[in-house]
Amino acid sequence: MLKTPAYAAADSQSPLAPHTIERREPRAGEVLIDIRYCGVCHSDLHQARGEWGGNGIFPMVPGHEIVGHVARVGEGVSRFKVGDAVGVGCFVDSCRTCPQCRAGEEQYCDEGMTGTYNSRERDTGAPTHGGYSTRITVNQDYVLRIPEGLPLDRAAPLLCAGITTYSPLRQHGVKAGDQVAVVGLGGLGHMAVKLAAAMGAEVTVLSTSESKREAALALGAAHFGATRDPATFKQLAGRFDLIIDTVSGQHDYNAYLSLLKFDGSMVLLGIPVEPVPVAAGVLIMRRRKLGGSLIGGIRETQEMLDFCAEHGVASDIELIDIADINQAYERMLRGDVRYRFVIDCASLG
Amino acid sequence: MLKTPAYAAADSQSPLAPHTIERREPRAGEVLIDIRYCGVCHSDLHQARGEWGGNGIFPMVPGHEIVGHVARVGEGVSRFKVGDAVGVGCFVDSCRTCPQCRAGEEQYCDEGMTGTYNSRERDTGAPTHGGYSTRITVNQDYVLRIPEGLPLDRAAPLLCAGITTYSPLRQHGVKAGDQVAVVGLGGLGHMAVKLAAAMGAEVTVLSTSESKREAALALGAAHFGATRDPATFKQLAGRFDLIIDTVSGQHDYNAYLSLLKFDGSMVLLGIPVEPVPVAAGVLIMRRRKLGGSLIGGIRETQEMLDFCAEHGVASDIELIDIADINQAYERMLRGDVRYRFVIDCASLG
Repeated sequence: MLKTPAYAAADSQSPLAPHTIERREPRAGEVLIDIRYCGVCHSDLHQARGEWGGNGIFPMVPGHEIVGHVARVGEGVSRFKVGDAVGVGCFVDSCRTCPQCRAGEEQYCDEGMTGTYNSRERDTGAPTHGGYSTRITVNQDYVLRIPEGLPLDRAAPLLCAGITTYSPLRQHGVKAGDQVAVVGLGGLGHMAVKLAAAMGAEVTVLSTSESKREAALALGAAHFGATRDPATFKQLAGRFDLIIDTVSGQHDYNAYLSLLKFDGSMVLLGIPVEPVPVAAGVLIMRRRKLGGSLIGGIRETQEMLDFCAEHGVASDIELIDIADINQAYERMLRGDVRYRFVIDCASLG
Repeated sequence: MLKTPAYAAADSQSPLAPHTIERREPRAGEVLIDIRYCGVCHSDLHQARGEWGGNGIFPMVPGHEIVGHVARVGEGVSRFKVGDAVGVGCFVDSCRTCPQCRAGEEQYCDEGMTGTYNSRERDTGAPTHGGYSTRITVNQDYVLRIPEGLPLDRAAPLLCAGITTYSPLRQHGVKAGDQVAVVGLGGLGHMAVKLAAAMGAEVTVLSTSESKREAALALGAAHFGATRDPATFKQLAGRFDLIIDTVSGQHDYNAYLSLLKFDGSMVLLGIPVEPVPVAAGVLIMRRRKLGGSLIGGIRETQEMLDFCAEHGVASDIELIDIADINQAYERMLRGDVRYRFVIDCASLG
């Protein structure tokens, strides 16, 4: 076993602190990855604080936006060789046999995907640990290739924030000229804007505060609507083919659904604490649809990375040392980050 | 003008009573139809009692499930000739130029479809009057052909209840072996069962009371689930490709959404008075979709009629005289009809 420096939450009440975990030498089909960067996702904070179901497995090493280089390969590894730039996203295993796994939608595995952290390995039952560490051992089938040309630090958030927004854009066939709205301009929202714009869509950012207008336009949005102003909802009624809703705070779905044109769809990526009332008439009268989407499968994640390399898309980040992680969590809670913290894992050294 | 016997509500507080309306001789492009049968839709009752927006236009002659024969044709009418068996559904006109009208989805017209009753003609502004009468004059582009082999009385409800359920089944590409659930077994629900079964789906009826089991199976359902029994929701979790929800009373959407498999859709046809809370997680975790659907366009309505003739599908009806209409409304309110009242318009004579 390989003693590996990490940062962990000892329990749901404790801040993250230095910790040592063990990673195994790669078994058949596995690769050992030297981690260079790890993005900081809002869900890291929720899980480290025991705010998700089951309270969590502690000590917990968060992190599922992992980028690094292959250090060693196990027997029979064909897809990667030592030195390759690779990534690991939100999951590291799944049943491989259910309809969703066979369709390459492993995140919807009937048996539940094995999370990159705060989960248990399917065979050993050992807790999984994430990217706030310097090494990770993962089966090659759950490892992504980082294409040349993508800066590794700015690629890290693509493994979660990128694929979470790319997938619904692709599922809905977004193409040149489509009218796409992005609700909320955080880690997910800023990727949705960049990706939708790269697909040729005319993007409108809908955000509570007028203060984000300039930033939205800089990211590639063509329009901005301040959602505290009721006039915004009148002006934009029936405008959009697709709305990507990244907001997890309580908000009025019906107001946003009314902005969809005939046959348009709104896709939820955030989960408000309380269920949100939906007026059937808003859906029926224009054949609108309300859906949800969960990250993306391995095949689609690779497609997204290749798309980003081809179109020069990457996350806007603030690089931090691991020692700053607790402060970063506090800033993230205040929405004070443009748009993703990324840990330089050399600082764990 | 042609003096025409009808039944009308004088105002929203009055029962329906004999009334005389005027129908015009067909203008260019119009046909005059001798009405034989008219189905009784739940929305007739709502509108006659002023329960929909704007309170309604009185005196009101309801009825939008109209079947009869062409009596006269106006200049330039090419699609119909005297004696043809024809039908008229929920609308008799639309703008013809908006994207939805051009796509044959006139019911979603940007300017609003012109309802068969309780609406105003686009050119004259005169109130429209429906099928509780012996004649109607309608532009040929909004008239359907009733194929040979369909009994006229049992075809009448196809013009609303039939197309309202056929359209979402087709929109979702229902095919042999698909798992389809139908929530509620009234006028809409019984048509959804017949149509989905005719498309080859394995149909499950979900209804509050066990008492409808036998009737559901007789209509072509393969399974029945009593929704008052919580075990039903456990047994059927993740089962369905498509759920057609015909219920307009308050009910828990999340419980039904959880019955959808990955990528499944639930389509709302009823409008509960209060918006219904939706849990984002139920949509996100299985990429489920919640939508709505409104009747169907002229082209799809014709397709539905042809499908019904080919597959021997028609509505189960109880034929009544017009004098029984107020009593029929009371019975409809109690759910005491299997499954649609149809007025024999000869009784208006």
